[in-house]
Amino acid sequence: MKAFMDENFLLETTTAQELYHHHAALLPIIDYHCHLDPAQVAENHRFRSITELWLGGDHYKWRAMRTNGIPERVITGDGSDWEKFEAWAATVPYCFRNPLYHWTHLELKTAFGINKRLNPETAREIFDACNDRLQNDPEFTAQGLMRHYNVEMVCTTDDPVDDLHHHRAYAEEIAQRTSSNRTSTMMKPAWRPDKAMAVDNPVAFCAYVKRLGEAADVDIRTFADFLDALQRRHDFFHANGCRLSDHGLEEFYAEPYTDTEITVIFKKVYDGGELTDEEVRKFKSAMLYLFAVQDYESGWVQQYHYGALRNNNSRMMNFIGPDTGYDSIGDWRTARSMSHFLDQLDYEDHLTKTIIYNLNPADNEMVATMIGNFQDGSVAGKIQWGSGWWFLDQKDGMERQMNTLSLLGLLSRFVGMLTDSRSFLSYPRHEYFRRTLCNLLGNDIERGLIPFTGYEECRVRQMVEDICYRNAKEFF
Amino acid sequence: MKAFMDENFLLETTTAQELYHHHAALLPIIDYHCHLDPAQVAENHRFRSITELWLGGDHYKWRAMRTNGIPERVITGDGSDWEKFEAWAATVPYCFRNPLYHWTHLELKTAFGINKRLNPETAREIFDACNDRLQNDPEFTAQGLMRHYNVEMVCTTDDPVDDLHHHRAYAEEIAQRTSSNRTSTMMKPAWRPDKAMAVDNPVAFCAYVKRLGEAADVDIRTFADFLDALQRRHDFFHANGCRLSDHGLEEFYAEPYTDTEITVIFKKVYDGGELTDEEVRKFKSAMLYLFAVQDYESGWVQQYHYGALRNNNSRMMNFIGPDTGYDSIGDWRTARSMSHFLDQLDYEDHLTKTIIYNLNPADNEMVATMIGNFQDGSVAGKIQWGSGWWFLDQKDGMERQMNTLSLLGLLSRFVGMLTDSRSFLSYPRHEYFRRTLCNLLGNDIERGLIPFTGYEECRVRQMVEDICYRNAKEFF
Amino acid sequence: MKAFMDENFLLETTTAQELYHHHAALLPIIDYHCHLDPAQVAENHRFRSITELWLGGDHYKWRAMRTNGIPERVITGDGSDWEKFEAWAATVPYCFRNPLYHWTHLELKTAFGINKRLNPETAREIFDACNDRLQNDPEFTAQGLMRHYNVEMVCTTDDPVDDLHHHRAYAEEIAQRTSSNRTSTMMKPAWRPDKAMAVDNPVAFCAYVKRLGEAADVDIRTFADFLDALQRRHDFFHANGCRLSDHGLEEFYAEPYTDTEITVIFKKVYDGGELTDEEVRKFKSAMLYLFAVQDYESGWVQQYHYGALRNNNSRMMNFIGPDTGYDSIGDWRTARSMSHFLDQLDYEDHLTKTIIYNLNPADNEMVATMIGNFQDGSVAGKIQWGSGWWFLDQKDGMERQMNTLSLLGLLSRFVGMLTDSRSFLSYPRHEYFRRTLCNLLGNDIERGLIPFTGYEECRVRQMVEDICYRNAKEFF
Repeated sequence: MKAFMDENFLLETTTAQELYHHHAALLPIIDYHCHLDPAQVAENHRFRSITELWLGGDHYKWRAMRTNGIPERVITGDGSDWEKFEAWAATVPYCFRNPLYHWTHLELKTAFGINKRLNPETAREIFDACNDRLQNDPEFTAQGLMRHYNVEMVCTTDDPVDDLHHHRAYAEEIAQRTSSNRTSTMMKPAWRPDKAMAVDNPVAFCAYVKRLGEAADVDIRTFADFLDALQRRHDFFHANGCRLSDHGLEEFYAEPYTDTEITVIFKKVYDGGELTDEEVRKFKSAMLYLFAVQDYESGWVQQYHYGALRNNNSRMMNFIGPDTGYDSIGDWRTARSMSHFLDQLDYEDHLTKTIIYNLNPADNEMVATMIGNFQDGSVAGKIQWGSGWWFLDQKDGMERQMNTLSLLGLLSRFVGMLTDSRSFLSYPRHEYFRRTLCNLLGNDIERGLIPFTGYEECRVRQMVEDICYRNAKEFF
Repeated sequence: MKAFMDENFLLETTTAQELYHHHAALLPIIDYHCHLDPAQVAENHRFRSITELWLGGDHYKWRAMRTNGIPERVITGDGSDWEKFEAWAATVPYCFRNPLYHWTHLELKTAFGINKRLNPETAREIFDACNDRLQNDPEFTAQGLMRHYNVEMVCTTDDPVDDLHHHRAYAEEIAQRTSSNRTSTMMKPAWRPDKAMAVDNPVAFCAYVKRLGEAADVDIRTFADFLDALQRRHDFFHANGCRLSDHGLEEFYAEPYTDTEITVIFKKVYDGGELTDEEVRKFKSAMLYLFAVQDYESGWVQQYHYGALRNNNSRMMNFIGPDTGYDSIGDWRTARSMSHFLDQLDYEDHLTKTIIYNLNPADNEMVATMIGNFQDGSVAGKIQWGSGWWFLDQKDGMERQMNTLSLLGLLSRFVGMLTDSRSFLSYPRHEYFRRTLCNLLGNDIERGLIPFTGYEECRVRQMVEDICYRNAKEFF
Repeated sequence: MKAFMDENFLLETTTAQELYHHHAALLPIIDYHCHLDPAQVAENHRFRSITELWLGGDHYKWRAMRTNGIPERVITGDGSDWEKFEAWAATVPYCFRNPLYHWTHLELKTAFGINKRLNPETAREIFDACNDRLQNDPEFTAQGLMRHYNVEMVCTTDDPVDDLHHHRAYAEEIAQRTSSNRTSTMMKPAWRPDKAMAVDNPVAFCAYVKRLGEAADVDIRTFADFLDALQRRHDFFHANGCRLSDHGLEEFYAEPYTDTEITVIFKKVYDGGELTDEEVRKFKSAMLYLFAVQDYESGWVQQYHYGALRNNNSRMMNFIGPDTGYDSIGDWRTARSMSHFLDQLDYEDHLTKTIIYNLNPADNEMVATMIGNFQDGSVAGKIQWGSGWWFLDQKDGMERQMNTLSLLGLLSRFVGMLTDSRSFLSYPRHEYFRRTLCNLLGNDIERGLIPFTGYEECRVRQMVEDICYRNAKEFF
């Protein structure tokens, strides 16, 4: 019996162990999509407790606690830090086989050096030990944790109306550090204009247009003004180092439309009208296209996260708001729209580097083959299938994504892992990913499916490093 | 080479073996959803032959025989018991890798103590040996077999118009038994009101409404009368120990409707009118909601089996009727409707404990994440994803369900296995499930993915027992 | 560490090795569906280079090269044979875990006896060695390669307007060979009438109807004439040995229609009109049905390949045409239509032997259970689920298809592998399939899941031979 989570955790062969320890583990992290709070980075936030750090915003843990029969008061309510931590510690031993069990212990181990298992018997001791470090150790801050995990760069997720002042402040600060501080993590913004196409909620959309106009210093009266304001913000993001967009979609949209129709639809919704379903889809199709053209013209990478069915629980939506653990996997069929969308861009030579993330693994093969239709030989791996996202961001999800990508595309050209996380403790997910990758390759090598001598041995080693680090570095 | 189906069948590690033999195997069976005939239980039916018991109603075997080129005469036709058994015995060696191969031999072994493999050479001998026990051994009756398999409780599946007299007779009988008979299996009815929403067949629906009125002693003229009659039957079932409903659906329904519309639709169909598709969906949406409110108000558990495409073969439907092996897996997309349905109930505080079973495994991840949206912390595992159903009720289907549940929810809170069967010989499926569960855990432990010392070792052992028995016991 | 691709490649147990080497490997190949060029067979084509043979039409390799950043000029453009081969050799080491890596080296090994790995360092040497054999060795021709791989029969894919003169010429030639030449591969045509239902492109459809009329010597003015012409061609194909049809579909069509409607739709499109979506679906439904009746009446086997989303890249479609690597997996839902289509045929006793291939593996379980609805006991395995197709034609795809077929049907009655290929070097895919099959069975046997003594041992050995060869031989 292998010991729980030892140094060869997830590494089932000596080849895998060697690939991991001698290659994957040594490389910095490029976390090209996350939801960190730029203020916490810029202000080098210090956490008051492990509860704030672990349970303050982690809807994965909240869902597990609710399933385990824990009352909301000690999940997102007014319970004390200790009460909440205790409730989580009581839940942890019910999480065997859930990735939370591994994340939790990897984070305790790699951040705090704690090798104990969290359960009701160890809860107090671990709570105190973590809090002591968080409150007293100078390296246990937002920036310190990123340094600890060898994070070279993070890309946050930002609204076009954001003034990016935290990004600017932080960029100035690290620019002024001396060469002895060269390990500082870079932080770049990413452009997430979802609200600029969300015309299914006219009131919120109109309010957003107003905010956009203010941010861009444009008096928005027409669709042309709206586009002008978006372009100005896009330019502003570009000037602040942004090279990446991200879009959250239920499905892809590729309804036929005319420019005149879109102008009319914009006027209708902006004048307080209600749109038909068809008008909503036309408008979203137009915006999706226009966003993509913007990104192409600026040489950015565009990302699409699609397929989440959000805010399923109206009661809790009213009570504690969105993004609190009430989202799940949808079952749209969107292959044809996705194809038309990408095809139009490619046809007009407006298709920039692209990453598509699906949430329903039943779509894996569809997406894995879709990207192949638009590889044009200009850049290796120009169109990417993103790493296992959200619910799929665990060993099985990663393995399925990598196995399917291997079979239907080129794993070697994959830009690899990202955390998509709100937490400064999520970097062990890169370790998890890298161990899983090395394990897949090690198993194949041991079974005679991949050669591992001479030229090919060298290529396997490079491939590990490429996927863990170098491909992302070159792609972004 | 491991011997075929030895005592460590399916148990690949010593940890798995230990968990199975020392925990899982020792626990009684709670079979909370099955299709046993209550008359056979109450009357302690004795089977005339292994053919009646095995081939009298098992559409799994019928499908395999048809695929194997066996004529219908010796499947469901007028062939003799021996002819049918012989045809099945000829098919068995063509069933390698099909669960029928394992079920068949597990049943021979655990019920009859026969360790031979069934094939044309052994057919006569096995036929005679089984029949001898069935005809002569006092324990080889309906009740005896349930006792033999340590079945603590079964829940049958019953129509609201059923008078439950077999349930009542059996309950009275076992209540009168002395303490020396304490091992008697309890039998509870379950409420399956599918026909009360099946307005897509107006003639059958109207006939059913008449029968319902008679059973409830209500003169049904309006939709209100119809609901009154249903509620009376619901109360009657409750009085007879029912705490569980079950619904067979193609997809979920959550069309917007008004009470007035439903009243009008009911009147229309009851007056002999044809409904539009939209009316059918509205009516089904209303009934699904009303059924759920009834169950909530009575504190029952509600079950949904969705996604079967039934009666695909019209020729055989006309010839031998429904449920004869001509059903298959559908491909509806129902995430949004399922979400709306559950959300409405939750929002109005009318959502009772729920189990959802999907038939298409492509929906696994969708369902596994859907249930998490409505866990409210009131009861651990309040919303359940049911064990692999029908075509998925085999090692691979069970493993996929448990793996996905593990990753996206809490396996530890799972209420576990049920037979969903018409046969008194299906209880080895619980053994199969338990071996599979222990094997999954054993593999993870041996690979260092689950700790197995101290507190956590104890927790793993409890978890096995919880899933095999205790969770179901507490849930129902 | 197992050596790369040694004699026990993919065979993880001694039982698997024994089953493969003593049974599977010894049997001839029946390649019942491929896209070989009949002219190359009849004329015993000699290839000018490995580039022509490997890269002349292989869109799998083209896709991989585009993903690897190779410019189109050396993929399908005017690059020299050496330049293209060099570009492929540079891509090969980026294909670890993609089936191309295995196909490439299996083909080098089994056709050319080359055990080196292809990479930039070995490219020239391998290029020269292969070309030397292709240009100088008398056995390295189209016919010679088929002989080398022990191919007993191939079925090509042919349009109804084809005059089949290559088939006839080749059939005459091999009929005249002496007994010393008895190893000649038989070549049969297969009927692929896709264009006769493609009314979504009226111009191409009308042009096709004209060609059909000429081929059939029928002056087509009405739908009845059109059917008459099709029937004449069907008879002509039958007279030339055809016993097999094939249909490429996005989804199944089973719209209700009347004969009058179809007559009118045909007239409308043939008079230059545009059809509505509903008319297109009605017409396709009618043709699909009529094709199936033709096949039934002639005692043919019918094949359906469904679910491909084709020609996604308009730019490249205009540039280099269809079937050049811009197709992918669609996500239609077609269970109900498939059911209605098969049900109508079965109901009218017009359902002939059928093979259904799905492209999206999310449909695997749906299809695997659908076929069971129409097994009628007349022929073992009458309705087949085809082997992993196109993107699924690799180890994982084959395993998933065989595992699911095993669980939901009878693997033992499976007609097995086909290449679906344009290349005379694709026969190692049969070897790949056979190794994979033996490995699955060997693993199950070693783990005690299949008995392997006495009657059952014999049955397993027969089953391997049945799936590799005998089932197909009897089915066609």
